[in-house]
Amino acid sequence: MLELRLVHGSLLKKVLEAIKDLVNDANFDCSATGFSLQAMDSSHVALVALLLRSEGFEHYRCDRNISMGMNLGNMSKMLKCAGNDDIITIKADDGSDTVTFMFESPTQDKISDFEMKLMDIDSEHLGIPEAEYHAIVRMPSAEFARICKDLASIGDTVVISVTKEGVKFSTRGDIGTANIVLRQNTTVDKPEEATIIEMNEPVSLTFALRYMNSFTKATPLSNTVTISLSSELPVVVEYKIAEMGYVRFYLAPKIEEDEDETKPQV
Amino acid sequence: MLELRLVHGSLLKKVLEAIKDLVNDANFDCSATGFSLQAMDSSHVALVALLLRSEGFEHYRCDRNISMGMNLGNMSKMLKCAGNDDIITIKADDGSDTVTFMFESPTQDKISDFEMKLMDIDSEHLGIPEAEYHAIVRMPSAEFARICKDLASIGDTVVISVTKEGVKFSTRGDIGTANIVLRQNTTVDKPEEATIIEMNEPVSLTFALRYMNSFTKATPLSNTVTISLSSELPVVVEYKIAEMGYVRFYLAPKIEEDEDETKPQV
Amino acid sequence: MLELRLVHGSLLKKVLEAIKDLVNDANFDCSATGFSLQAMDSSHVALVALLLRSEGFEHYRCDRNISMGMNLGNMSKMLKCAGNDDIITIKADDGSDTVTFMFESPTQDKISDFEMKLMDIDSEHLGIPEAEYHAIVRMPSAEFARICKDLASIGDTVVISVTKEGVKFSTRGDIGTANIVLRQNTTVDKPEEATIIEMNEPVSLTFALRYMNSFTKATPLSNTVTISLSSELPVVVEYKIAEMGYVRFYLAPKIEEDEDETKPQV
Repeated sequence: MLELRLVHGSLLKKVLEAIKDLVNDANFDCSATGFSLQAMDSSHVALVALLLRSEGFEHYRCDRNISMGMNLGNMSKMLKCAGNDDIITIKADDGSDTVTFMFESPTQDKISDFEMKLMDIDSEHLGIPEAEYHAIVRMPSAEFARICKDLASIGDTVVISVTKEGVKFSTRGDIGTANIVLRQNTTVDKPEEATIIEMNEPVSLTFALRYMNSFTKATPLSNTVTISLSSELPVVVEYKIAEMGYVRFYLAPKIEEDEDETKPQV
Repeated sequence: MLELRLVHGSLLKKVLEAIKDLVNDANFDCSATGFSLQAMDSSHVALVALLLRSEGFEHYRCDRNISMGMNLGNMSKMLKCAGNDDIITIKADDGSDTVTFMFESPTQDKISDFEMKLMDIDSEHLGIPEAEYHAIVRMPSAEFARICKDLASIGDTVVISVTKEGVKFSTRGDIGTANIVLRQNTTVDKPEEATIIEMNEPVSLTFALRYMNSFTKATPLSNTVTISLSSELPVVVEYKIAEMGYVRFYLAPKIEEDEDETKPQV
Repeated sequence: MLELRLVHGSLLKKVLEAIKDLVNDANFDCSATGFSLQAMDSSHVALVALLLRSEGFEHYRCDRNISMGMNLGNMSKMLKCAGNDDIITIKADDGSDTVTFMFESPTQDKISDFEMKLMDIDSEHLGIPEAEYHAIVRMPSAEFARICKDLASIGDTVVISVTKEGVKFSTRGDIGTANIVLRQNTTVDKPEEATIIEMNEPVSLTFALRYMNSFTKATPLSNTVTISLSSELPVVVEYKIAEMGYVRFYLAPKIEEDEDETKPQV
């Protein structure tokens, strides 16, 4: 028996909007500690990890660990039917091949039950070890989304370069080049507008803008985004979910040869 | 000679938006009592009835009964050119094959005349007798529109079931099922937010969501909608037009066999 | 060396939005007096003239006259990456085949450099003599845009007729006719809402609505538009740019035979 009651139901709606374009089908894993998901995107390039800790739910009952395979597009269709102020409860009976999403309006005058068929999905859970990063940038999530969108109008890839002074986002395309520099800035009025850089050594890495722009679908979940960079590891783009957990996106850097593929070979 | 002056011209714009997708061409009937229309939708499944009573017009002159055939798409194109605060006057000379829509801005600094060709349309006027209904539900029109839209993302038909306690809207589709229950609620702060059920006997009827969603184009006309249900009659979905009349939509329920048509036949 | 710093950068964004649909490629001419452009639209029917006077820039350095060929679509893509409150600086080195647009956020925490390739464009600069017009209409730019859009839903051309009392915009199409009359009105609360007519003799001229609707893309640049009409000259549709200059559009009237081409020939 599973019963997870989330007072801020809009949060679950935002989670689905954040990941449904990247991942078609995935297993949601439910245990005593929380409701989580780990999945590769459909082209097996990026990895998504979601965690909603049990403490964040008003009521959390999960009698035994279960894994529920869901089509995220269908799940999103159902969650879109929840009002933004609705309480959402996820319910499943042991051994059932369906999950039920219950939406309660704040006044309790409207109660909706949406029942969705579960799927069998093969998946292996990757252990993601804690790692040291060369540089960690925390910045306003809306600014990061704007930069990725702007650069995608010029080129296909973004070079992210971090120094102590700031972080530079660069691209190059048929019509020209673009460089956007954000200065470290910790003295703003609102903490969520700060750009904060923690750096052990300078780093400059290249990523596909297409994936970065997919990740920014998570922007409504958090005012800030944290980008962890290391030359030997996939970048981690993390959106914290207040008092509950996070959505993290992992993407391997493009290697240098890719960048220079238009140059003549020697 | 016909001259009908409507101070709240935006009302006529909303009426056209409410019906133009359902009905292509129709006769507007003008008599001493009011300006009205009755028409089947283009697939001859649903019926629309509009009444704007003469008392609702600032000036109403209709020397003799006339019936004017109009293309509702073209009429809507012209009415869209009226400002939302404009006064609209409908004018026609006896025997003319055109109708003129005059728009006056509130300051009288802008006066527009749009002249549209009339059409000859065969139509028979159905007498719709007053009837007793098993159940009448009055609810916020925006809530009804939201429910029809939400259910259409899951299935093609809606079962509307009324009991003393409330009204249930259900559907079923490839991805699962949905049930939305609204409780009778008469103690809200604003009367237009109430859900009020008058019931003689419980009723449960099935309708095509496609038509229900067309009917909800009339939502801007009224804060509330009234749904009158009887197992032997078409449902009536009514939007009152303040102090003037109404738009009513009629739709026959789907019979049981239709619902089960995907099951194997014995 | 060229360096033009514009504190209200959004103004340059609006200029590009105003002209990029009409003109694909054009030379921007830079001299000590200002930054200007003159170009025919791609079908060689309409002419655009832009002037941004040097006094309107916070910093204006132009060592020698230069002409820079730009693709306006690409330039617009880059300017869209500037924030609405950003300061924009246009920079070019002597003899360089690129131009750089620098965007500075108001807090100076975000600095962007967009470098665009220049093009070689053949163009001849037309001398446009000062002329006397039969009638000059000044009216709210949003009203002119609304009228052109509304009439285009009915017909393809607009007849603009000016008398002392007002200005009439008329069209005719398959579904009917439309006449919109604006009265001269100088006694409004806000001067930008006035409709002011200076007339030497009545004039009635026909224009293609498609071009008029293109011109109205400049509406965000100014609250008012000035339309200068003469039976022997192209109409001038002018949007002033506060304290800096203007965008002017020139379009030849359609001759009478065009208007009557649907009539039987004698």
